[in-house]
Amino acid sequence: MRYLSVSATIILFAFLLSGKVVFAQAEYEWRLAMSWPKGTPMLHNAAARFANNVEKMSGGRMHITVDAPGRHKAPLGVFDMVRSGAYEMGHTASYYYKGKDPATTFFTTTPFGMTPTEMNAWYYYGGGLALLNKVYARHNIVAFPAGNTHIQMGGWFRKEINSLKDLKGLKMRIPGHAGEVAGKAGMTPVNVPPGELYAALERGTIDAVEWIGPANDEKMGFQKIAPYYYAGWHEPGAELHLFINKQKFNALPEDLKAIIAVSAKEASFDMLSESFFRNAVAWEEMKKEHNISIRTFPQDVLDAFKKANNELLAHIAGKSPYVKEVIESQQIFLARMKDWSRITDESYLKLR
Amino acid sequence: MRYLSVSATIILFAFLLSGKVVFAQAEYEWRLAMSWPKGTPMLHNAAARFANNVEKMSGGRMHITVDAPGRHKAPLGVFDMVRSGAYEMGHTASYYYKGKDPATTFFTTTPFGMTPTEMNAWYYYGGGLALLNKVYARHNIVAFPAGNTHIQMGGWFRKEINSLKDLKGLKMRIPGHAGEVAGKAGMTPVNVPPGELYAALERGTIDAVEWIGPANDEKMGFQKIAPYYYAGWHEPGAELHLFINKQKFNALPEDLKAIIAVSAKEASFDMLSESFFRNAVAWEEMKKEHNISIRTFPQDVLDAFKKANNELLAHIAGKSPYVKEVIESQQIFLARMKDWSRITDESYLKLR
Repeated sequence: MRYLSVSATIILFAFLLSGKVVFAQAEYEWRLAMSWPKGTPMLHNAAARFANNVEKMSGGRMHITVDAPGRHKAPLGVFDMVRSGAYEMGHTASYYYKGKDPATTFFTTTPFGMTPTEMNAWYYYGGGLALLNKVYARHNIVAFPAGNTHIQMGGWFRKEINSLKDLKGLKMRIPGHAGEVAGKAGMTPVNVPPGELYAALERGTIDAVEWIGPANDEKMGFQKIAPYYYAGWHEPGAELHLFINKQKFNALPEDLKAIIAVSAKEASFDMLSESFFRNAVAWEEMKKEHNISIRTFPQDVLDAFKKANNELLAHIAGKSPYVKEVIESQQIFLARMKDWSRITDESYLKLR
Repeated sequence: MRYLSVSATIILFAFLLSGKVVFAQAEYEWRLAMSWPKGTPMLHNAAARFANNVEKMSGGRMHITVDAPGRHKAPLGVFDMVRSGAYEMGHTASYYYKGKDPATTFFTTTPFGMTPTEMNAWYYYGGGLALLNKVYARHNIVAFPAGNTHIQMGGWFRKEINSLKDLKGLKMRIPGHAGEVAGKAGMTPVNVPPGELYAALERGTIDAVEWIGPANDEKMGFQKIAPYYYAGWHEPGAELHLFINKQKFNALPEDLKAIIAVSAKEASFDMLSESFFRNAVAWEEMKKEHNISIRTFPQDVLDAFKKANNELLAHIAGKSPYVKEVIESQQIFLARMKDWSRITDESYLKLR
């Protein structure tokens, strides 16, 4: 026993001295609250692949349980739950919280604003990520872009819109900032719970509805009852975000911080690819089975939307220099990038 | 001493039993050979940020030294150096190796082919990544997409091209598959070393030159001597790749494999954003200082390029079912996605 003890001591000290023995790092059992129901195409996948990649890259040192609203009961409460630390993390859309802080609105998307390519350039090379965290620091949250829907559609209409006067008084389900724009342009934005949308559109209680894009829309069945599908103008690539409670994030070791940051960015990228793919495939199926007419709004309608949007943005920016900074950062950036998108993306798609 | 030994033994065993002591993992000192000179905008950055992220995420367990051709002397030898294990890793463009294996060509880009958004959808949701590794497995390499140039420009021309006959016999620096297409369409593709390109274009030894996009082109100075800058058709988003020696990759622990895969994907995404951004900024500067006319090739020129490209692709595919699989996978995928790009990206950029 004595010799064994001496040997063990020598071995222990030898290991310690050689640096070949280290203490196992703490394990992190974290929970993520997402705003989307379990199984929502693309959106749930982005949260799940983020969590899965963190687990694999950390060699199992960090495990993240992804909770849907079925469990946490607060799809629009992710902001508060992460701020307070009730959940370490959340996966949600920044613009859901414009009531808490109007500066959060445009980190998701802006009507007639940046495409996903431009938005990513803004986040990573145009100061967007720093601005995002300047805004969220006020709410005890560290935020990362973490998913993109790609360009959303302008919605399903029962009748064709040939001019601005066809739009007047039209009842449309279109929420948030875009709904305010539509209202200013003469429409009547209405709020209908998702479960009642199909019946409302079928019965003519509403005349139009915007949802996301074919992959999500086809499950709602709008293609069966509204033959006009309008090209998008109001959500040219909605970016989702990962929220993390600031104290919890700051207490992490540097390698896990890096793993989270890179994994969130990968989720943003991957969801953009998946969204594009699934919508293209759903559109391919839809157009075979239904007689759907793709339309772009006539110029006077687009002009009215643009005017209303510009006025609303100016109004919101006018209320605080803090919100103005976000709006102006995006506007100045887009003004610089716009010509290049026209020369490359637009020209190429036209000539191909 | 005796009691100390006994205590130490108890402590050692207690740690071992509790699982709280682990042996430090091996450290990996790896080298990456890149094809680009040190400091090449975007391209070197993508390799460097990949290496840096791997180091941070692995907590320093893996360190990758990035070597430029100034050191390894073989910009187009990355394939061989990684295959043999002389370098564990490489950062290069797959289409440089079409002489080694024609199936490698189109993983980078294809004239009139996929945009970056479509290409990423193909890689991650359309079977592209699996096909890439089916091809590279024959060469003892594990490959990941790891950088994108965004849509490249069609090149600088001293004279305006008004119809196909203006193109006949025109001497242009345009290498690779696109050069063959240009040749078939009536041009004379020529090879001029990069360092002599400016003088050749200035003296009229060549009539046109394609390089990359404004951020790289402006350093070459072409904007001073060729006033027509044509929109791109031949490299609609060249994807770069990370190559890894297969034995070395397979011997890595699972967490490092995941760290490499996610980090490569992040590099692909980030370089796309950086390329878009830097080209847009360089274009903004260029157009202020020089009188540059942006042009799209006339329809008969585009038709001739398309016809030549289709014939060449059919010819290459006809030579082996193995190469055909890659070409057809891309063509079938693009045919499915095309309409969706038109309805979203193209429509949105037009109406914005």
